[in-house]
Amino acid sequence: MNGPKTNPGNFFEDFRLGQEIQHAVPRTVTEGDVALYIGLTGSRFALPSADSFAQSVGLPGAPIDDLLAFHMVFGRTVADISLNAVANLGYAAGRFGVPLFPGDSITARSTVIGLKENSNRETGVVYVHTVGTNQAEEVVLDYVRWVMVRKRDKAAPAPDPLVPQLPDKVAYADLDVPLDLDLSGYDLVLGGSPHLWEDYALGEKIDHVDGMTLEESDHMTATRLYQNNAKVHFNQHTEGQGRFGRRLIYGGHIISLARALSCNGLANAFKIAAINGGRHVNPSFAGDTIYAWSEVLEKAELPDRRDVGALRLRTIATKDRPCHDFPGPDAAGKYPENVVLDLDYTVLMKRRG
Amino acid sequence: MNGPKTNPGNFFEDFRLGQEIQHAVPRTVTEGDVALYIGLTGSRFALPSADSFAQSVGLPGAPIDDLLAFHMVFGRTVADISLNAVANLGYAAGRFGVPLFPGDSITARSTVIGLKENSNRETGVVYVHTVGTNQAEEVVLDYVRWVMVRKRDKAAPAPDPLVPQLPDKVAYADLDVPLDLDLSGYDLVLGGSPHLWEDYALGEKIDHVDGMTLEESDHMTATRLYQNNAKVHFNQHTEGQGRFGRRLIYGGHIISLARALSCNGLANAFKIAAINGGRHVNPSFAGDTIYAWSEVLEKAELPDRRDVGALRLRTIATKDRPCHDFPGPDAAGKYPENVVLDLDYTVLMKRRG
Amino acid sequence: MNGPKTNPGNFFEDFRLGQEIQHAVPRTVTEGDVALYIGLTGSRFALPSADSFAQSVGLPGAPIDDLLAFHMVFGRTVADISLNAVANLGYAAGRFGVPLFPGDSITARSTVIGLKENSNRETGVVYVHTVGTNQAEEVVLDYVRWVMVRKRDKAAPAPDPLVPQLPDKVAYADLDVPLDLDLSGYDLVLGGSPHLWEDYALGEKIDHVDGMTLEESDHMTATRLYQNNAKVHFNQHTEGQGRFGRRLIYGGHIISLARALSCNGLANAFKIAAINGGRHVNPSFAGDTIYAWSEVLEKAELPDRRDVGALRLRTIATKDRPCHDFPGPDAAGKYPENVVLDLDYTVLMKRRG
Repeated sequence: MNGPKTNPGNFFEDFRLGQEIQHAVPRTVTEGDVALYIGLTGSRFALPSADSFAQSVGLPGAPIDDLLAFHMVFGRTVADISLNAVANLGYAAGRFGVPLFPGDSITARSTVIGLKENSNRETGVVYVHTVGTNQAEEVVLDYVRWVMVRKRDKAAPAPDPLVPQLPDKVAYADLDVPLDLDLSGYDLVLGGSPHLWEDYALGEKIDHVDGMTLEESDHMTATRLYQNNAKVHFNQHTEGQGRFGRRLIYGGHIISLARALSCNGLANAFKIAAINGGRHVNPSFAGDTIYAWSEVLEKAELPDRRDVGALRLRTIATKDRPCHDFPGPDAAGKYPENVVLDLDYTVLMKRRG
Repeated sequence: MNGPKTNPGNFFEDFRLGQEIQHAVPRTVTEGDVALYIGLTGSRFALPSADSFAQSVGLPGAPIDDLLAFHMVFGRTVADISLNAVANLGYAAGRFGVPLFPGDSITARSTVIGLKENSNRETGVVYVHTVGTNQAEEVVLDYVRWVMVRKRDKAAPAPDPLVPQLPDKVAYADLDVPLDLDLSGYDLVLGGSPHLWEDYALGEKIDHVDGMTLEESDHMTATRLYQNNAKVHFNQHTEGQGRFGRRLIYGGHIISLARALSCNGLANAFKIAAINGGRHVNPSFAGDTIYAWSEVLEKAELPDRRDVGALRLRTIATKDRPCHDFPGPDAAGKYPENVVLDLDYTVLMKRRG
Repeated sequence: MNGPKTNPGNFFEDFRLGQEIQHAVPRTVTEGDVALYIGLTGSRFALPSADSFAQSVGLPGAPIDDLLAFHMVFGRTVADISLNAVANLGYAAGRFGVPLFPGDSITARSTVIGLKENSNRETGVVYVHTVGTNQAEEVVLDYVRWVMVRKRDKAAPAPDPLVPQLPDKVAYADLDVPLDLDLSGYDLVLGGSPHLWEDYALGEKIDHVDGMTLEESDHMTATRLYQNNAKVHFNQHTEGQGRFGRRLIYGGHIISLARALSCNGLANAFKIAAINGGRHVNPSFAGDTIYAWSEVLEKAELPDRRDVGALRLRTIATKDRPCHDFPGPDAAGKYPENVVLDLDYTVLMKRRG
């Protein structure tokens, strides 16, 4: 084992179909992470904000914000999957399992489920299925993402291309509703909105109104907190000479800001149950102000539950572009350059019952 | 309940005298918040810094810094009270109750106790009495603040004007000294200063010497931590086109910095017991360096206590202006533009006994 | 005790040989501090990241990162030792004792062990031996540092010069290996590298490859977290008119970044056992990107341990200067201006056994 000690990251030709990767650096998620997450995003959803509120709906205490759990799992995978990534292309089939609580320790492992070399032979797309588990080996989150990864050697032979079949959305019957959850004691005033599941109409669009300006220190601190060590977020010395001339914001931070902004209009969407799909359609940089709007794509009842329903949402985030007129892709599916995120996900919301 | 889902905030004509408002989003205050508060303010008071010190004076552990408790209560109220505020005009009658400890969950409710339309008919002043309580419904903090709020409709009729009578200060007999507090074991060396209650003279002025430069990331992170979502602090895209061309610092962050700076000169003022009055007399912005000085306005013994006394202090904070010559308002009460805060509050300090 | 209340800090002539100083403001180190430390440094060592990992090697939970413990102890000492320091000249004989865990409270005391006036009679060098202890009075860390401190009065008489004998390194027999530590369950995959103690060669050099750009908000937040109140880090209003025209980064933050970067290449160096010596050879500022490389100076077995060995490392950090060619001092010992840190320390690493 003598020889270079530094991890160069995996290149496209290092991945093979069916490969299983146990990721390094388990992580205990604590009240400290929760505080920093609120400090960096301004999230105001009641459930992850207060033990008292969580206990009023049957949980032992405030669960970790779903997206904080997502970032913590994602962060484990970067050193193996995306250190040499050119772009984080998309997410699908993301399903949140048991809630994560402060003090829980997570690990993550990934399986390579798809590979496709690009026609330029310089890069390829790697599809991985990642599973994050807690210290009891319960699944906290599993999801698929695909990234464009550089090849080490353009001449390296291409694997047989396989693009996995990915579901349009996580099936409602597969959503995990926390076992002990009982919304009979859910306080709408404390929740922050009088609007319940019944009040949202199919196709309804909501402008979340507020904006949040990005700072270098904020996005780097968030990304470091998740121990996501992708180089493009941290090194102005090299990025200053790169494609954009500046550090790139971790796309997950944009997802978190969009979700935090969405509290104004969706305050009782107390939990993200699934990430059906998502794309970072343009990069964001320090100084940009992030706005967001949402559309209700679907509504669904859940098996055996009358207190909680599902809303499938599409949240689009923009930069330096208010969302009163709901900007999105044009008829050809092309996004204007000030749209940065298009996320399709399913939330749980209190029903009138 | 169909219809717009986004909270537009209350306008002046939405408030009525006697109205009671339960604020949304309860908040568990944790060791994570404590760490971030120290990281953002540099506060060095011994009591909220160490369980060991707190236990040496009879408390079960380090209480939450009084101003962190204040910001957490204040943060609850913003969405209902000051989302459409033009200015946060003042505070009075602020009384800290039972200490807050990590793990406690707070909620806040407010009562409208005064209303007065301004002569321009475009804005009005709203006076609210806010009470913050812990999960046992014990009062953690109650205070009055008044804000100038925009009217939705200039033509809306004005309510009968009522400006509440507000006390000059919180009466010493009304101050809450934590029940178990016993300063016999108070270690002056660990406390950080040899100066005790007896050593401070009426009218004495103290230059706190040090300065702290404001950064966008710091004030936004502090303000988000408190879940204070007032727009002016976060959105450069709109504020860049506004009055000041930049984001405004949350006034409470300036109070915290002034208090943290005051540790150099007032290290044994281990607790704020009351905020008698306070005004943000000029705005602050990123890049400004905050300085502070204090004057001893009054000294008082406390009923049944020989180990602890009260000092009524006035702390003035400036920007880019050292305080060796104690800058303040002129004879006409007008403040120079580099004075930003004038705060009248009462601290508890160890006595020789 | 009437009179000035503000601490002016000690000047060179205020120190005397053998003087013992108990430092103020004890500090409970919490999970909140841990989160913020990870958020500000991006550290990815497995042991301080996860309770589950720590428990797999016999510890009750994740210990506080050694450097976070160092900064917390160091922070206690600043108000007494280095408030009037011109420069932090060096460290030696730093030995980590019992691990620090979240919830532990530290205090620090220092003894003056050396004094030497400089020939200009305007400054002098003060050598202090500092001991940080937990609430059970167990030693967490002890080390020597020396600082150049201004004189209040150039004419004040010089003390007899005494420069203490300092060891070249902490003896391997004196290193503290945590009592319960048992590396038989150490998981190399979770640890983040296949490389163990046996794999590192004497004289081996490792380029840690990655870079981290400094931001004002990050270094100030880190330094405030440690309650290190040295003025040069915080006040742009005065520093803008000073030597460098800007705020100076706390050298300890650079040490932390260098250690965090070193995880890429030294991931199984799970603990710092000693700081043999170290110098901040040039200042760093916001905007600089920090890189690092390390050299293996010595390898040592430890008494009665076959599962863990010691590596004595030299880690050099640079600014805006990648380290593939291992920059360092020239033959005359002079450092190029883009080298900022030269640190000699001893880590513990898993052995094949």
